[in-house]
Amino acid sequence: MRIGIAGYGNIGRGVEAAVTKAPDMELAAVFTRRDPASVRTVTGAPVMSYDEIGSMKDEIDVVIICGGSATDLPWMTPELAAQFNVIDSFDNHANIPQHFANVDAAAKAAGTIGIISCGWDPGYFSLARVYADAALPEGDSYTFWGRGVSQGHSDAIRRIDGVADARQYTVPVPAAVEKVRSGSHPVFTARDMHLRECYVVAKEGADKAAIEEAIKTMPNYFEPYDTTVEFITQEELNEKHSGLPHGGSVLRSGSTGLEAEFNNTIEFTLDLDSNPYFTGSILAAAARAAFRLSQEGQSGARTLLDVPPSYLSLHSGADLLAHML
Amino acid sequence: MRIGIAGYGNIGRGVEAAVTKAPDMELAAVFTRRDPASVRTVTGAPVMSYDEIGSMKDEIDVVIICGGSATDLPWMTPELAAQFNVIDSFDNHANIPQHFANVDAAAKAAGTIGIISCGWDPGYFSLARVYADAALPEGDSYTFWGRGVSQGHSDAIRRIDGVADARQYTVPVPAAVEKVRSGSHPVFTARDMHLRECYVVAKEGADKAAIEEAIKTMPNYFEPYDTTVEFITQEELNEKHSGLPHGGSVLRSGSTGLEAEFNNTIEFTLDLDSNPYFTGSILAAAARAAFRLSQEGQSGARTLLDVPPSYLSLHSGADLLAHML
Repeated sequence: MRIGIAGYGNIGRGVEAAVTKAPDMELAAVFTRRDPASVRTVTGAPVMSYDEIGSMKDEIDVVIICGGSATDLPWMTPELAAQFNVIDSFDNHANIPQHFANVDAAAKAAGTIGIISCGWDPGYFSLARVYADAALPEGDSYTFWGRGVSQGHSDAIRRIDGVADARQYTVPVPAAVEKVRSGSHPVFTARDMHLRECYVVAKEGADKAAIEEAIKTMPNYFEPYDTTVEFITQEELNEKHSGLPHGGSVLRSGSTGLEAEFNNTIEFTLDLDSNPYFTGSILAAAARAAFRLSQEGQSGARTLLDVPPSYLSLHSGADLLAHML
Repeated sequence: MRIGIAGYGNIGRGVEAAVTKAPDMELAAVFTRRDPASVRTVTGAPVMSYDEIGSMKDEIDVVIICGGSATDLPWMTPELAAQFNVIDSFDNHANIPQHFANVDAAAKAAGTIGIISCGWDPGYFSLARVYADAALPEGDSYTFWGRGVSQGHSDAIRRIDGVADARQYTVPVPAAVEKVRSGSHPVFTARDMHLRECYVVAKEGADKAAIEEAIKTMPNYFEPYDTTVEFITQEELNEKHSGLPHGGSVLRSGSTGLEAEFNNTIEFTLDLDSNPYFTGSILAAAARAAFRLSQEGQSGARTLLDVPPSYLSLHSGADLLAHML
């Protein structure tokens, strides 16, 4: 199948790598809203202007949209679903029902498939939540994120006066994870579940105490958490904190038996060296599913919750039965 | 939806509990090949002879078949698929393709749905393997079982001369799990991955040394593993080892990036107080999916790999979008 990538940042490069390595896919083109001449792809795949994407309608089976959830995807995914089968990683949980409805209307009108929210949360973590809930309807689910870099929290620190650069790690509290595993069904505050570790480069002459205070008291972002702040040099930040690792766990603790006499724990954990490259890899697998659904004549919006797992797989149904079931 | 249970052992009782608690299901009847008068269900659900099951064709939407994989399911599932939507937990991995073909032929001819192999391995572990492989096509997957009771291995010990009773636990080797998590892609022997712990009640005057030797040298079952044997009294066995806990982990360690420069680990772990009750709970969720597929007019054999995750869920599509994605 022939894949287009719309938007070429970290996730776009992750998709490029995944598509290039997939034996059943080829990368037709990357589309950018920047000057195409200014964008060089890692693999040498052609770069075209986003405005020209309509001219590639017959050359592309699925467009993977690698824009931001705040301002890009809400209009890009419906717009592109009017012409192509599309995939996105829309991750603004509160707005998912509206985004789904918008993509569904566009895709149904055009006879295309749009699979939204195909990252790891939402995405694979959503799958873990739904499968665990189906097996253990009586129980409690918990999601822990990290240890990993939160770009939103890193950006929030960078906007503070006197900050040159920053990197923030979200860290699950190990004792909280253990409490869930023990089957005790704890009720947590935000502070109970996650710590926030901040590595900050101060500008020359900046008031470090004031920066630390501004971080630790920032509402929503840091105030509800135990937060540590360490000032380091730009060199140390570049050397030790330039990656984008992430991960986390979905846990469900629930009972079986008429008298709820048996306790059970289901746990799904990701440990990722690179958040955007793993997200890109899931997006590529989702493109395979979109192509198959489209080939069957289906149309409209979907999430991974609507897609048979085998549709994501490179392997045939017979191979899955014989070797992976 | 109205559920029938065919076969009333441990798993049948697990299904009974799950169906009784599901707000969208009712248990129509339990079918047994024993004398129905000799079987009392935990919930008081009616018991009928297996031979009468055909008379309930219009009263039941899905039959959950709770027989053994060795001698029951190979004929029962195709036989019942000729009259009902059916679910089973067939777990003889090597024979799955043949069983699938047999059920598919019967179900297609009858216009029914048959979802096979709906336990946790095969079943939820299969899902974990396929999702992990789709996200990380370059990598290695590992399945660890336990700590949990293996009924097959316990039975094998009971057949040894001088043994009154026995319970065998399969135990993953912690260092092996850690090696996989570290991303080192180890190649394991059977001995590297699992230990076998045996608790044995010897008959009066039996030769314990001979029993221990017979266990440890038993081909396939124990010889390829580090095995410990502890002799205990029947009272201690009953008191400490009467449960059927189980669980385990599916792990995949794989790379992303054009140069495979990023390592990632995906881990799915189950920790179950009761193997048959958890299996029963998955079978009930699968019955929900079979009913929905059947309502859509689909027919033929399926596995959980073919079923959209949302079909297993009690919650509506809108609820899943708003609260679980």
